[in-house]
Amino acid sequence: MKPGLSGSTVLVTGAYGFLGQGLVAALLDAGASVAAVGRDAGKARERLGERRGLRFIAGDVNEPLAYDGPADFVVHAASAAAPKRFGVDPVGVLSPNVFGTRNLLELARARKTRKFLFVSSAEVYGVVPESRQPILESEPGGVDPTALRSCYAESKRMGEALCAAWHRQHGVPAVIGRLFHTYGPGMDPDDGRVFADFTADAVAGRAITVKGDGLDRRAFCHRDDAVAGLLTLLERGVPGEAYNVANDEAECGVLELAERIQRLFPKRVPGVIKAPRPAGPAFAASPVRRSLPSTAKLRALGWAPRIGLDEGFRRTVESYL
Amino acid sequence: MKPGLSGSTVLVTGAYGFLGQGLVAALLDAGASVAAVGRDAGKARERLGERRGLRFIAGDVNEPLAYDGPADFVVHAASAAAPKRFGVDPVGVLSPNVFGTRNLLELARARKTRKFLFVSSAEVYGVVPESRQPILESEPGGVDPTALRSCYAESKRMGEALCAAWHRQHGVPAVIGRLFHTYGPGMDPDDGRVFADFTADAVAGRAITVKGDGLDRRAFCHRDDAVAGLLTLLERGVPGEAYNVANDEAECGVLELAERIQRLFPKRVPGVIKAPRPAGPAFAASPVRRSLPSTAKLRALGWAPRIGLDEGFRRTVESYL
Repeated sequence: MKPGLSGSTVLVTGAYGFLGQGLVAALLDAGASVAAVGRDAGKARERLGERRGLRFIAGDVNEPLAYDGPADFVVHAASAAAPKRFGVDPVGVLSPNVFGTRNLLELARARKTRKFLFVSSAEVYGVVPESRQPILESEPGGVDPTALRSCYAESKRMGEALCAAWHRQHGVPAVIGRLFHTYGPGMDPDDGRVFADFTADAVAGRAITVKGDGLDRRAFCHRDDAVAGLLTLLERGVPGEAYNVANDEAECGVLELAERIQRLFPKRVPGVIKAPRPAGPAFAASPVRRSLPSTAKLRALGWAPRIGLDEGFRRTVESYL
Repeated sequence: MKPGLSGSTVLVTGAYGFLGQGLVAALLDAGASVAAVGRDAGKARERLGERRGLRFIAGDVNEPLAYDGPADFVVHAASAAAPKRFGVDPVGVLSPNVFGTRNLLELARARKTRKFLFVSSAEVYGVVPESRQPILESEPGGVDPTALRSCYAESKRMGEALCAAWHRQHGVPAVIGRLFHTYGPGMDPDDGRVFADFTADAVAGRAITVKGDGLDRRAFCHRDDAVAGLLTLLERGVPGEAYNVANDEAECGVLELAERIQRLFPKRVPGVIKAPRPAGPAFAASPVRRSLPSTAKLRALGWAPRIGLDEGFRRTVESYL
C-alpha cells in the first residue's frame, strides 16, 4: 500500500475545532476517509456537515476510544488552547495533551498506524531571547513548569516527549507539528486570543481595543497554510522529529494588526484604542514578546505559506460578517 | 489535629528505593506511621525491615492504588532515575512521574491529604547558563522535549505541572522538592551515575575511571540531608511552590570527586584514570556542565545541610565495604 493519504483512513481528534474543521476538509479533498473524533457527535455533524468518506466517532480523548475501525493515519488535534481556561480549568487544559496523547499513541501502536501527527504549539518554546530568533526546532526554550500557563505549555511539551518515547521504544512513527499563532474562519471569537478579540471588535463595528503596549510581535499563519503544513508532515514528516508550522513571512506587531484590520474595514472600524493589559489568573497573559519561527525544516519537505497578512485578515473578518 | 508528622500516616511511594529507604526511616523516627508503596512487597520488607508503624502496600503507581487506609501526607518518591534506562525504556521512565503523579494527586484529593510532596529533580532545569547560577526556583531552564533525556527531565516537569494544576483547581496542597545530585548508602551501584560508578570502583579496589574531561561540576548532597529537606517541606513547604533540595556548600568537579575518594581510601584505590566519554543512547550523557543550586528558599524554612563532602563520601563508600 502506498503511503499517500488518498484511499486511507485518517483518525482526527478535535475534529470540529477551529483547526480540525480545516484539517478534515483538506483530508477529504485529498481523497482520504476521515474518522472524526469529538465529544459531541451532534456538534461535529453541525460544524463539519455530511460528506462522503466522513464518519463521526463520539468519544473523549482522555479515555480510551471505543473505535475499532482502521487508522492508517492519526492526527491528534484535540486541544484546549483558549487562554481564558488556563486559570480556571488547568486539569482540563492539560489532559488532552498528556492523557489523550498517550491513549492515541497506544491506539496507533495497536493499529500499526503509518503516521501519527501530534499538533503541538510554539508555546513549548516559552520565552526565547531575541538573539535565538528566528526559532529553530532545536531551541530548548524556557518554560516555568509550575506557572499558570504551564498547564498548556508544559503539557504540549509532555505530549511531544510522549511521542518521542513511543517512537523510540515502540516504533510508533510520531511526528510533531508546532503551530504558531494561527487564525482564520471558524475561530472561537471568544477564546481570548488577540486575533479573535480584534475580529470580534470589527464584526461588532466598534473601535479595536489593544490591551497593553501592542508591541508584542507574532507570526500570523492563516489556517489554510497551517493545514497544508500539517498534511505535508503527515505525508513526509520524519518520525521522531518536530517541525515549526508557521508563516514566517507574516510577522506583525499587535498594534499593527489592529491598524491593518482598521484599514481593511474603514467603514466598520472607527478607530484603534489602547487600554491597560488586564491582570489576574483568568487572563494569563503570555510573557512572550516576540515569537518568530524558522520554517526551513518544513519548507525542505516542499511546503510554503501562501496567504499574506492583509489577504488572510480580510478573508477571516469577512467570514464572520 | 495538629499539622505535625507525629501520629499521622504518610503514604510513601518508591519506598524501598535509595531515597525512599531514608525517607521511611526518618518518618518512623519522627513518630509517623508509614504506608510504604512498592511493586514488590517482599523486596520492600527485605530492604526496609519490620518496624513498628510500617506497613507495606503492594502496588504500581502507574495504576490506581488499592489502598483505603489513611493518607494524612503523601510523598511521591517513586521514580526511574537511572540514566541507563533512558534509551531503552523511556515509557517506563516517564510513567511514574506523569501517570503515577496523577493517580496520587487524585488519591490525595479524595483523602483530603494535608500535604502532598512530589520528589522532583534538578533535571527540570536542563542546561542553565553560568550567568544564571546559582539556580533559583524561578529559573525556567532549557530542556528539549524530544531529546533522549526528555523521558526523565520532561516528565519531572510535567509532574510539577500536574501538582500546580491540582493545587490551583482542586486545592490539593502539593509541594515540590527538586533534588540535585544525591548520594549515600543504598544507592544502586549499577545505576550509571557518577558517584555510583566511582563507589563501585573503590569497592572493587580498582582505579577510578573518569569518563570525559571530568570538569562537570555538581553539588553533592548526602541522602540524610536531602531527606531532612524533604521532611521540612512536608511540614512547612508552601503549597504550589517548588524548592531546591541540595547541598550548595558541597560543589565539586567530577575529577575532583574521584581524587577525593582516592585520598579517603588510598589503600583500596590505586589511582584515577581518564577515559573517553561513551556515546550512544544507552549512556545518555547529561549535557549539563554545571548545576549549582540556590537553597535560600528551603533554608528560610529552617533547614540546612550538615554533611560535607569528605564525610559523606567516606560514610557512603564504607557502607558498601
